[in-house]
Parts: sequence; C-alpha cells; structure tokens
Amino acid sequence: MLSPLDPIALQRLLDQVAADAPSHFGEGKVADYIPALAEVPPDGFGIAICDVQGNVYSAGDGGKAFSIQSISKVINLVIAMQRLEEDDIWTRVGREPSGQAFNSIVQLEVEKGVPRNPFINAGAVLITDILVSRIMSIHWVLREQARRLAGNPDINFDARVARSEMDHKARNASLAYLMKAYGNLQGNVDEVLDLYFHGCALAMSCVDVARAFAFLANRGVSPLDGSVVLAPHKNRQLNALLLTCGLYDAAGDFAWRVGLPGKSGVGGGIVAIVPGQMSICVWSPRLDTYGNSVAGLRALETLVNGLGVAPLG
Amino acid sequence: MLSPLDPIALQRLLDQVAADAPSHFGEGKVADYIPALAEVPPDGFGIAICDVQGNVYSAGDGGKAFSIQSISKVINLVIAMQRLEEDDIWTRVGREPSGQAFNSIVQLEVEKGVPRNPFINAGAVLITDILVSRIMSIHWVLREQARRLAGNPDINFDARVARSEMDHKARNASLAYLMKAYGNLQGNVDEVLDLYFHGCALAMSCVDVARAFAFLANRGVSPLDGSVVLAPHKNRQLNALLLTCGLYDAAGDFAWRVGLPGKSGVGGGIVAIVPGQMSICVWSPRLDTYGNSVAGLRALETLVNGLGVAPLG
Amino acid sequence: MLSPLDPIALQRLLDQVAADAPSHFGEGKVADYIPALAEVPPDGFGIAICDVQGNVYSAGDGGKAFSIQSISKVINLVIAMQRLEEDDIWTRVGREPSGQAFNSIVQLEVEKGVPRNPFINAGAVLITDILVSRIMSIHWVLREQARRLAGNPDINFDARVARSEMDHKARNASLAYLMKAYGNLQGNVDEVLDLYFHGCALAMSCVDVARAFAFLANRGVSPLDGSVVLAPHKNRQLNALLLTCGLYDAAGDFAWRVGLPGKSGVGGGIVAIVPGQMSICVWSPRLDTYGNSVAGLRALETLVNGLGVAPLG
Amino acid sequence: MLSPLDPIALQRLLDQVAADAPSHFGEGKVADYIPALAEVPPDGFGIAICDVQGNVYSAGDGGKAFSIQSISKVINLVIAMQRLEEDDIWTRVGREPSGQAFNSIVQLEVEKGVPRNPFINAGAVLITDILVSRIMSIHWVLREQARRLAGNPDINFDARVARSEMDHKARNASLAYLMKAYGNLQGNVDEVLDLYFHGCALAMSCVDVARAFAFLANRGVSPLDGSVVLAPHKNRQLNALLLTCGLYDAAGDFAWRVGLPGKSGVGGGIVAIVPGQMSICVWSPRLDTYGNSVAGLRALETLVNGLGVAPLG
Repeated sequence: MLSPLDPIALQRLLDQVAADAPSHFGEGKVADYIPALAEVPPDGFGIAICDVQGNVYSAGDGGKAFSIQSISKVINLVIAMQRLEEDDIWTRVGREPSGQAFNSIVQLEVEKGVPRNPFINAGAVLITDILVSRIMSIHWVLREQARRLAGNPDINFDARVARSEMDHKARNASLAYLMKAYGNLQGNVDEVLDLYFHGCALAMSCVDVARAFAFLANRGVSPLDGSVVLAPHKNRQLNALLLTCGLYDAAGDFAWRVGLPGKSGVGGGIVAIVPGQMSICVWSPRLDTYGNSVAGLRALETLVNGLGVAPLG
Repeated sequence: MLSPLDPIALQRLLDQVAADAPSHFGEGKVADYIPALAEVPPDGFGIAICDVQGNVYSAGDGGKAFSIQSISKVINLVIAMQRLEEDDIWTRVGREPSGQAFNSIVQLEVEKGVPRNPFINAGAVLITDILVSRIMSIHWVLREQARRLAGNPDINFDARVARSEMDHKARNASLAYLMKAYGNLQGNVDEVLDLYFHGCALAMSCVDVARAFAFLANRGVSPLDGSVVLAPHKNRQLNALLLTCGLYDAAGDFAWRVGLPGKSGVGGGIVAIVPGQMSICVWSPRLDTYGNSVAGLRALETLVNGLGVAPLG
Repeated sequence: MLSPLDPIALQRLLDQVAADAPSHFGEGKVADYIPALAEVPPDGFGIAICDVQGNVYSAGDGGKAFSIQSISKVINLVIAMQRLEEDDIWTRVGREPSGQAFNSIVQLEVEKGVPRNPFINAGAVLITDILVSRIMSIHWVLREQARRLAGNPDINFDARVARSEMDHKARNASLAYLMKAYGNLQGNVDEVLDLYFHGCALAMSCVDVARAFAFLANRGVSPLDGSVVLAPHKNRQLNALLLTCGLYDAAGDFAWRVGLPGKSGVGGGIVAIVPGQMSICVWSPRLDTYGNSVAGLRALETLVNGLGVAPLG
Repeated sequence: MLSPLDPIALQRLLDQVAADAPSHFGEGKVADYIPALAEVPPDGFGIAICDVQGNVYSAGDGGKAFSIQSISKVINLVIAMQRLEEDDIWTRVGREPSGQAFNSIVQLEVEKGVPRNPFINAGAVLITDILVSRIMSIHWVLREQARRLAGNPDINFDARVARSEMDHKARNASLAYLMKAYGNLQGNVDEVLDLYFHGCALAMSCVDVARAFAFLANRGVSPLDGSVVLAPHKNRQLNALLLTCGLYDAAGDFAWRVGLPGKSGVGGGIVAIVPGQMSICVWSPRLDTYGNSVAGLRALETLVNGLGVAPLG
C-alpha cells in the first residue's frame, strides 16, 4: 500500500513545513523553569526525517543542537530494556497513561510509590534509579548510547543545563523522595537525579534524534549500521507505550491528531515514529500549556497528512 | 508488506485458539453487578474475524449472542460522529486516557463535569445525552445502526438486561447527576440512562460485532455493502481513541500486549481492529479485575502473534 | 468566673452589633443556586440570644423568618440521636472534619460511600435516609421537633423553597446515588431528598433558632420547658461535632476566630453555642466563598469579644 | 460550676487510671518507622497533671522521659506565635483540619504547597522553615523554650533519635521539596529537617509536658513563674487549633470522646488542655492505626469523665 517515497517530493514537503513554521511563532512560550532553557531564542524551527533505509532529510534548523530533555527518557528506557529482565523494570513502574494533569505526585501517593509509566517524571526518575544501581559507569553508557544510536560521536551533555536542572530540582526531588519513602526508589536521591538531569541535558539536533530513533520504525534494527537495538516484540511494545503515554496529559490528543507513537521534551523537540517507514523529529522552543512544542505539533500534523502515513488506518 | 491471508490457515488458527480457551476457564469471574449478567454460564468462548473483503471466519461460540455492554459505546459514538459537528461533541467530552482506577467520579469533579473520554462510563453517558437531545427516535436509530453495521436484521435489545441495569443504576445515575450539576449533561437523567442501558443490552454475537466494526479496519468503508460509515480521517481518529482509551485502566497494558485499537465490555466481549486488514471479536464471560475478559485477552495475544499483525511495528 | 450577664448591657451590645452590620453589606453575595433563595433581599441582618434561663434578647431583624437550610442538619441529627442507637448512626457516617473544599464527592468515593460527618451534604442526606427508613411520618416529626424546640407552633416548611431545591437537586442526587451504589444509602433517593429539602426549607427566625438550640448550652436540657433533649454526654458530643465540623471547610477558621460550636446555612443563618451560658443566632444573606454569612461572622466575632465568652480559654 | 479539685481525690483518680492502663497493653503497636523508636519497651504508662496553680500530680511512669515527637510541633508554633507577625505565619500555612488519611502530599499538591495546618507534618515542617530563616541559633532557642516552659534545665535532644529520623527522612523530605517547588518553603531542606527532627527528638516526661503546656489552660500565663507565654486571644486561638487539628485524622473522634484541645505524638505521648483548670499528659507507646496512643486515649476518656471537666458542655 505504501509506495516508496520520492526523495525530491519529500524534501519539498519538509521545506514547505519549515517555511510555514514562523506563522506559529507568536503562540506558546519557552520553558522557563530553569534559566538555561529560558535563554533559548524562542523562534527557531527545525525538522528531520530518517527513513528505514537510513536516508536523512532535513529543513530549517534541522542540524542545530537543542536540549532533548524528556526525549532522553526513551534512551534511558531503551538501555533498561536492552540490559535488564522484564521483571526488573515492570514490577517497579507501570505501563498505563497517567490521566490527570496534576497527578504526578497525587497518583504516586495513591498508588504507593509506583509511577504509572516510564515517561512521566516519576517513572523516568525510577528508571534512572534502576540504571544507576545496575550499570557501571552509567553516565558514560548513556552518552555512548546517544552517540551510537545517532551515529554522531560529538554528542555531549550540556553541563550548564545539567547544573541548572540540579539547582531547580525541588519537584523532582519531591517525587524521588516519595518513591524512596515507599521503598521503590533504592539509590541515593541526588545521585539518581544527577543522572536523570544529565540525560535531559543531552544536546542533539533534529537529525541526531531522527537517526537515533529510526530503529523504532524498523522493527528494532538500526538502519545506520544494521545492529539490533531491540528485539521486534520489545520494539513494538515500546512504540505502544510511546503512543499511549509519550505526550503526558496530551497523549490522547496527539494520538487523535497525529496518530503516531511519539515523545516530546520541554526543550521543544518532538520525535514521532511511522512504523515500517521513518522516524521524524521536529523542534521549536515555544510550548503549549501541556509542555509540547506548538509549531512542532502543527508541523507534524501537516507532515502526516501530506505523507498520508496512517498506521491506525 | 502484508500477504493475503490464507483462509485455511486462518480458520485453523481460530480453531486452535478456541481449543486453547478452556485452559483459562478457571481464571476471573463473571460480572455480577446486575443479576441478568451474573446468570450467564461462565465458561463459554467465541471468536470471529471479518477481513476487509468482508470474509468472515469464526470458531467456538462465535455465533452465540451475548450482551455487548460497553462495546455499545462505540456504536453511540459513531452515530454522534456521523451526524453532529465536532464541536457538538468534543467541547463536552475529552479525548484523553482516564488514568486512575477510581477516577470515574473523582476526575469528573476535579474537571468540573467534563468526562475524560467517551469510553469511560461518564463520557459514554454524556454522548448518550447528546444523542437523546439531537436525534429523533434515537432508540430506533441505535438498533438500526447495530443491525445495518452488522448486516443482521435480527439484532435486538435484551429487555431483561436493560431493565436489570436500570434497577441497578445508582453509580451511573451518580455520574449523570454530577455532570448535570455542572450543566454539561442537559437531558433528563432517567431518559438518558434508559438509552444508555438499552445500548449496553444489545445482544450480538462475535460474528455480528466483527462484521459491525470491520469498517474501522477499512478506512471507514463497510466491507459488507461498501457504504461509507466514517470519513477516513474520522475513522483514523476513532481508532486512535480506541487504542488510547478503549480498555479503561488497562488501555496501556492492552496496547503493550496486543498493540491494536480495541474495546471491551463486561459482558465478556472484546473487539480489536487491525487497520487495513480485519476486525476481530472474542467473547468469554470471566473478567479480570479491570473488567476485561481473561480468556478473550489471551486469545487476542495468541492470535496477534500468530497472524504477525503489528501496525505499531 | 462568669458573672451573670447584665440584661441592659447585653441588649445594648446586641443593638450595637446590629447597628454595625450594614458596614458589611457590600461584601459577599446571596446564595443563587436556587431561584427561591436568590430572591431574598441581600441586606438584612438579625440577631438573637437565648440564655440558659430561657431569656431571649434580639436586635435588627431578629424576628424575621429565613430559610434555615443546613442548620436543619442539626435538627435531623438530634432526632436521630434521640431515637436511635449509636451504632445505627455512626457505622454509616463518620465524625471527622472533611478537609478539602472539593471533597464532597471525591472523598465519598475514596471512602466507599461513608460520608465524613453529618454536616457535609452527603452526611446529612445519609442521616435523612436513616430517619426515613426508621421513623413513621417523619416529615411531620421533623416539623414538630422544630416547633417544640423553638416553642413556636407557627414554624413551617416554605413549600416554594422545598420545590425549588428539588428542581435543582442534581448535585445532592449525585451524592445520594453514589452512597446508594456503595449500599450505604438504602431508601429511595427521591424520597430521601424530599425530606432533606423540606428540612432545609424550614422558615425560622433568629429568635426561633436561638431558642431551639439553647438546650445545647444547657447540658441538653431545654430552658424553655425543662425537658431533656439530649443526655449530657450526647449533648457534649454534639457540641464537639459542631466545633470541628459545623462550618464546612471554614470550621478551623471559625474555631480560630469565634471558638464556639456552630452551624451555618446558605440562607445566611449561623447558630453558635456558649456552653453553660447561651445560644446565639445571627442572620444576614450575603455569603463568603465558603458559603457562610459575611455580616453574621463579623457580628459573632464582635459579640464573643464583647461578652468575653471563651470556653477554650 | 467547677469546684476546686481535692488533691487527695485527684491523686487517687490518677493512681486508678495508671492501675487500669495495663489492661490495654495488648492493643496497638509501637511506632516502627525509625529503629530508635521501635526499641522502646511497649508496655509502659505514665500520666501527669499540672493545674493552673502549678500543682503537679502524677502516676505510673509520669516522670520517665519519652520522645515527644509531634508534640514538639506545638512548641515550634508557640515560638513562631511569640516572635513573628500573624501574616508571617498564616499566609504560608492554613488553619483547617486536613481531612483525608492519605492527604499529606495529595492535598499539598492540590493546594499548591500551602499545608492545611501547622500540626500535619507538612505544616510543621513549614513552621520550622519560618523559624530557621527568622531566628538565630534556633536549635538553642528551641531547647531553651522546652526547658523554660517545663521549668526543667535538664531537658535535652536525644541525638540518637534525631539522627535516626534524618536517616529515614524520605517522606518528610518529599513534603519539604514539594513545598519548595511551590516556593513556600524557602530554606535549605536538610537544614529545615534537621531542626524539625531535633524538636521531635526532645526527651521529656509526662510531668515536663504537663508543666510546659499548663499556660494553655491558664489564659497564656505560665503557672510556674507567672510569665506571659501567649496573649490571651492567641492562647485561645491555639487551643482552638489543637481542638480541630491536634490529632490528625482522628481529631473529630478525639473531640467527640474527650472534648478537649490536645496533641499527640508517635512516641506515645498525648497532651490535653482543660481551659481554666489544668493540662494533662499521658504516655504509653502502643499506637492505634491513626498513630495515637491506645492506652493514653483510654486514660484520657476515663479521666475526663471522672473529673467531669467539659468545656463544651
């Protein structure tokens, strides 16, 4: 049913999407909860696609590095899914959408310290706790994973962002200590948060991110080097989780509008997966009230309609 | 990518799934909140598939009528999506997963009478309220819709079930009155509930249900008679909603295990959609703690793995 | 420690409080959730005191009847405490403050249909359910109780208010049906609400209310006719409950400012008890955001300071 | 109404209460959330009374030091009420009962970091934050306050308990960081908790505690040395707060059964105030499910009935 994409048409579509982006530059606002993010010029836009043959297309600031923030939660989870048994992970974190806007901590108390899924902050911190306790040199492993997936040895942590996050750790520390009070989080809270914030502070471009997650569109195999990142059934499971839980409290709306597995970050990036075809990454710093990039969401809608990709029919 | 299914192999797979079902008959328990459901013999199993050419395959009690219960929420929503403007629907009910197990009424109060999505009870009652106020002879319209979608003029309400539901209306009445207190539900509560319970009391077989929802696998076009049930983009949206919200508090787990849009009912039925290929309906009355059929879920997992259908990669 | 009050000084104090009341007439707004209450002229003020000898003092509109609304919850509870065993009451309703502003229904679901105390709406409806199921001719009994306690045979239900409440029953119906869903409320919801709304619709003046509740200041004995309304230990318990739970979500603030057992109603009345000395009733229709009379609260603060009454030291 | 107490009768009553206490030694269990508390022998009992003339009566282990735990919250609040303006305190912490058993952190998030009252953990930590930021040498000030109020220069922190609390700080740290995330808690979390835990670790006997809080029964004046601890209106306010909020989620039940302002701690101590007459302290380590001393509560009920003290009538 899916014809091979015409490279010229695809590039033209990306260029058009990038050209349209500035019409949304008035909407939303840049994340300001840490100074290092608040300083980012608000009106940039980038986009990149990596297809399952490994071909990359990009437009706008597609090559410019941004702070991937919560997109790092997927990298952390992939490491956990690669190296640990299912029970080591899924007895300590759930796989259900989180539901309420105010729920991070409410739900965590009602459900006795077990976070709903690995993509809300509490769940991502818990995954980090698992990594810290199980994997040696985990900071190094995390950075290597990002570099290898993206095929870019220059990817690095933005130390200033990581430090700024730690200086404003209060809410995440509250979540972490609550999980520790329930005995679910086992490590030292500051150590766990340090790794978590370093992941958030990874600086990657749209091209990097699209390449890094292209394996999710390719049944778990990286189109860059042919290596198996995840077994096919785990790959499908991760896509399912991204579809139901990837955009916080707007996951349902994203599924409704875009219909793809995806993950957003407050740095303005969003990655989306078209199974069997491609990964897409967009970036634009202004966020809506759910913390998702305004221009990024619009671009994805346009792109999905333009490409006619629709795994849900 | 998807080869045409071999009819003989498919039938053999269904027969095998039906033969395996009794091994799960010890688990779970039949819904007992209304007497009419509690009387159903607990150990039946049926399955049916309708592909996008309209071919039907079934096994076990695939032809035996059961109470579709919450699966009727999809029929109600389809009527609303066919006949009403988007704003008439989506300003009064959300499209997000509901998150917490205890949330039906908690969330409804926190969010001031706007239910999270059309598949939790509150949202389904609200959709019924919209139908009652906008559509003449709506009981008749609803039954005709079920008959026409399934191509079976003998489908009917089970009056005894509908009456039994009304006799035990307390929790749904509480939800309805709370939405009325917030001004979101506008009709007479008992009239609205009467329609809602009649939908729940529709008696259909696995074959009926699979045929009725085959359009969802076929970009909105019924393979039975070629009629357009929903425009393609609406069809895709409905599948997205079924994937994120169709199984209550187990939606995430269903996406993880089965990876398909689906909807369950406490009568023991579950319908699932393989976009571009087929609809599947299973039935078995014993339910897990989330209210989903135990043997039905197992059968779907086996079937999906056996068929290798995986829209999420 | 407490000198007998000088009648002339006391009357002068009441007159002064009444004269000061209009300075608060700009604040707050009249209850508007039912039309019959919304029509009350907003700027009245009345006050009355009944001491433990049965002497009555009043000022302003102290003799003008108003809708006692939630103050009727105390009358209902007194009937229950007089006629039923402790276990018939306190196994079905708690005795703890309710805490959260939005909690009526949230808490009721979390705590499985057992309301926190008899003075939040859910608890008062539950007490009414107990009365309906246990006491013959309960509408008549309720009116007689109000008449006998106040020594005024002309007290009556305001039928228009009762009907208006029933027409806007949605929120209370929601609470009632939720309790019924949990099996705690046992009667017919509409019958129970009919009694509940009739209690709310009792029309009494400040003088009536002060006289009716003077027994609470007098160790359970009515100073009007010397009859025992409640045994001393029950009387103390009821005062304790009024102190901790009588003013909804402002109970703590009322204890802090006024330091007396009390009960307010959205008709603008507040009754307060000085154990060993007197009951006080104030009335003024404009309410603060907690549903308590603005001018009434101010008057009580002034009065308590002026009288130097302080059971809490 | 209140005759001067007969010292011989009073002592006899205390002896009898102490003699009855062992009959409750089988019920409840010692706090075990920190090792230092779990080691306390479970079956002790002490009681002491200090009347408004400063006379002290005691029985059982009334002279034996125990960990006062949450009773220290009252000492902290008294320091704040003595030295700071009302607005410095009550804009940052409420004065309402907290309501739900699970609410510490739920409510804190719903109400954006403002704790309900100074006696739940979050509120007490917040009061400590205020003290830390405003008062020099606050550890020293706190210990001096305890010593001066009780007239016992030997009162000290139990360093082992304080350290053990810090080692198990997770839940309180979670509350503190959440309040910090909302900008309400301003200091360094570990510093604030260090003071908080030192207060909890004060070792005092029933005699010490009864003497320390006798001023609350005496309109704010210490009967030990005649010094004004709190102005009369503040003293009354504090008693009101103790009555509505002093026993967590059992405050309503305590008011119902005992009818006095009071404060309990998980070390097994409870202090209660009879305004105008006396303060009472009981101690026994086994706790009920609300965290209140089982034998202590029984002793207070017996004592209150025996003495016939009833400020609420």
